[in-house]
Amino acid sequence: MNDATKTNNWRSILHNALIVTMDKESRVFRNGGIVIDNDRIVAIGQSADIIRQYSSNSHEIIDLHGQFLLPGLINTHVHTSQQLARGIADDVDLLTWLHHRIWPYESNMTEEDSYISTLLCGIELIHSGVTCFAEAGGQHVSGMAKAVELLGLRACLTQSVMDYGDGLPSSWVIRTADECIQSQKELHKKHNNTADGRIRIWLGIRQIMNSTDRLLLQTRDTAKELQTGIHMHVAEIPFENDLVMQTRDVDHGTVTYLEKVGFLSSNLLSAHTVWVNENEIGFLSNHGVKVSHCPAAAMRMLGFAPIKEMLDANVCVSLGTDGAPSNNRMSIVDEMYLASLINKGREVYTKGVTDPTALPAESVLKMATVNGAKAVLWENEIGSLEVGKKADMIVINPSSWSMVPIHDCISSLVYCLRTENIVSVMCNGRWIMKNQKIMNVDEAEIISMAKYASAQLLNRAGIQIPNRMNLI
Amino acid sequence: MNDATKTNNWRSILHNALIVTMDKESRVFRNGGIVIDNDRIVAIGQSADIIRQYSSNSHEIIDLHGQFLLPGLINTHVHTSQQLARGIADDVDLLTWLHHRIWPYESNMTEEDSYISTLLCGIELIHSGVTCFAEAGGQHVSGMAKAVELLGLRACLTQSVMDYGDGLPSSWVIRTADECIQSQKELHKKHNNTADGRIRIWLGIRQIMNSTDRLLLQTRDTAKELQTGIHMHVAEIPFENDLVMQTRDVDHGTVTYLEKVGFLSSNLLSAHTVWVNENEIGFLSNHGVKVSHCPAAAMRMLGFAPIKEMLDANVCVSLGTDGAPSNNRMSIVDEMYLASLINKGREVYTKGVTDPTALPAESVLKMATVNGAKAVLWENEIGSLEVGKKADMIVINPSSWSMVPIHDCISSLVYCLRTENIVSVMCNGRWIMKNQKIMNVDEAEIISMAKYASAQLLNRAGIQIPNRMNLI
Repeated sequence: MNDATKTNNWRSILHNALIVTMDKESRVFRNGGIVIDNDRIVAIGQSADIIRQYSSNSHEIIDLHGQFLLPGLINTHVHTSQQLARGIADDVDLLTWLHHRIWPYESNMTEEDSYISTLLCGIELIHSGVTCFAEAGGQHVSGMAKAVELLGLRACLTQSVMDYGDGLPSSWVIRTADECIQSQKELHKKHNNTADGRIRIWLGIRQIMNSTDRLLLQTRDTAKELQTGIHMHVAEIPFENDLVMQTRDVDHGTVTYLEKVGFLSSNLLSAHTVWVNENEIGFLSNHGVKVSHCPAAAMRMLGFAPIKEMLDANVCVSLGTDGAPSNNRMSIVDEMYLASLINKGREVYTKGVTDPTALPAESVLKMATVNGAKAVLWENEIGSLEVGKKADMIVINPSSWSMVPIHDCISSLVYCLRTENIVSVMCNGRWIMKNQKIMNVDEAEIISMAKYASAQLLNRAGIQIPNRMNLI
Repeated sequence: MNDATKTNNWRSILHNALIVTMDKESRVFRNGGIVIDNDRIVAIGQSADIIRQYSSNSHEIIDLHGQFLLPGLINTHVHTSQQLARGIADDVDLLTWLHHRIWPYESNMTEEDSYISTLLCGIELIHSGVTCFAEAGGQHVSGMAKAVELLGLRACLTQSVMDYGDGLPSSWVIRTADECIQSQKELHKKHNNTADGRIRIWLGIRQIMNSTDRLLLQTRDTAKELQTGIHMHVAEIPFENDLVMQTRDVDHGTVTYLEKVGFLSSNLLSAHTVWVNENEIGFLSNHGVKVSHCPAAAMRMLGFAPIKEMLDANVCVSLGTDGAPSNNRMSIVDEMYLASLINKGREVYTKGVTDPTALPAESVLKMATVNGAKAVLWENEIGSLEVGKKADMIVINPSSWSMVPIHDCISSLVYCLRTENIVSVMCNGRWIMKNQKIMNVDEAEIISMAKYASAQLLNRAGIQIPNRMNLI
């Protein structure tokens, strides 16, 4: 039977799997089973026990033949609108990246472009085992929401707002703080808790250099009122900290300033957060701020964030891919591999040698699951496979040439796993990918739409990418 | 027709491809064609011209439907014998890695283990677009050679030799320098230029800490005599340089010492080469030494090699994966992505900010192709698609969700390409992978053999991998 025939009371059993629960006891069932009623997990345990207790009143029983079952991965910083911009800004300096590529691109996007971009991005997220993501902020939240609803993903969507800033494209009318807040309130009203509860609307701050104090504080207060989160790019480059020190009268950077004005809070998802000192790590920890570490984008554009120090200070660090023009692979699987590698390597600059024991595999897995769930303020329902939680999970084939032999099943998930090992993905109790086939959209059709839309958009925006090599 | 029916004079045409030739003029044909007679390229050009000139007397004409055609990638540092050890030493310190995992593993290997390990590794190399590799040194070269011959790959195989060293496992009898040389001469006689010329035998130096001066100098002289290359691990960790300074009376490290004794030469493939100063980069450049940069292994275990400085000094830098227990992905595709990212990131430690323009995509592509060919002393026959060279090439599907949209076809090969985009691989004029199916061995059978052999080997070696998390 397929998903379309499901009744209102549908019970599925998945069994004969190595289940990495990521629960508080860190249980890993060598041969586990899980019972799902509609969208929720109602039992988890040894396969034999699950089959004995639940098989008689189940609608389907799926034998996973020893494959791995994990919670869906959570991508806590992704610009879905930028998927059509993959490759438009490779190997260029930061100012070219921003002024001549990204701003013209974003300011020329239509809602339809954003819809197509989010569809294409969503396909990559699902193939990479992601069931939930936090949008980093784009122009057309309604376009994103339409795509997320269709794909079957879970997401916290955010509008990109700015009420201040020099050098922005003329077509981007800078709105007042009040207009920014009003627009986001309307989006919240329209989309929050839609798509069977899979969509939540957050508030956004693009970055401190494009925000007045009025916008910062109204955002803080509105988030409290709406009981939602705030997604903000924080302490990305040294220039940002320097400007904050010069113009806002503090002795370090953005985090110090945000602490001073009472902006730091446990509902803040602070993306990148690369240039922070020990004091500021303390502020993040004390206020329960969540950090999204984006290893690839950080290495390319920003710098090495002090992740080990943040984790040591009990800051909740999760993982993000950032947007396609900053990365360009949009895979949390690759980010897990990178997070472990670069944070081992980074130790060389303090210790004189790398530390292969830094950021072990189990810490990285936590970042991509339970910490991700905390970062998106959804940890009561997702991030681990536990009774009562939503059925968001992924099936991994560990028997291909890319993972064999497996001597350490946990580390193999961080160091060997590739996107192509992810076989099936379930979100909210529904398969959104089965045997590597995306269920709710036609991949080939989206790819074709994306090629056309991106070419049109670049043309409209006047963006020309110089040829490399001798193209004839 | 399949390869088995080929006559002695077989002409194939591949056309309608974006061909990245990597030739001296850096030509990229938007719609190119290539003509292959048996194992060699006899023509390359615009598709229309190729078809007009050659189609009447060809045995097969393959339409690549706009896919990308590139030279086969070259992996210049890979321990094929260590494939069965994937995951046995994750997140452990370097001494545990060496003394309690790798040495017991390697010293308990049989020739049959090495054969199976090389088969498994070879499958991963082929899926990752590799047509030629340089073995970093293992115990059983005959086992490797048998696997390479069967898989259809091209390789420079090397025995791991040591004539000195404390702390090695008792089962490893340290041989004299003369015995080491004699053993390698025999391997050279037996295997060099076999498998239709696809196999060459090199000389190995494991590392300076396991080599007497006598072994170093005999190796240098024997390599000249046999007209072959030398593969050696060089300047991997600060401890190595310190020991060399203390015991061999030089003021810096391994490279300084090798220069002093006249060991540096253009037939030396110097792996890793992380801890070198400006003088030593000069020595490498002056003597035409080739470097194998292994980004993942370096970040995890060694440190950040000064790749930009080496390239600026005209050192030929190529790419390697190292062995499975140091990485654990064995994909040059991933190493290209990593090489670009970490060398952009590394600039932060000298400039205060990362440099997104460092190591641009075209430089990384060169490292994986033409520089790789120079590193393995085979540049007259491989590394680029040119008339007269061997037909070693790969077909890439650029139209999947992982690469679309493509605005910059060259950078997309470094930043977006994933192993799963590599569709078909030809080595020496024969398809060794077609539509992601390995042609010459049964993948499932090798995987099954590898699981069994690796479990037996770990058991024999007494290696136990502690469980992580709460495995029940």
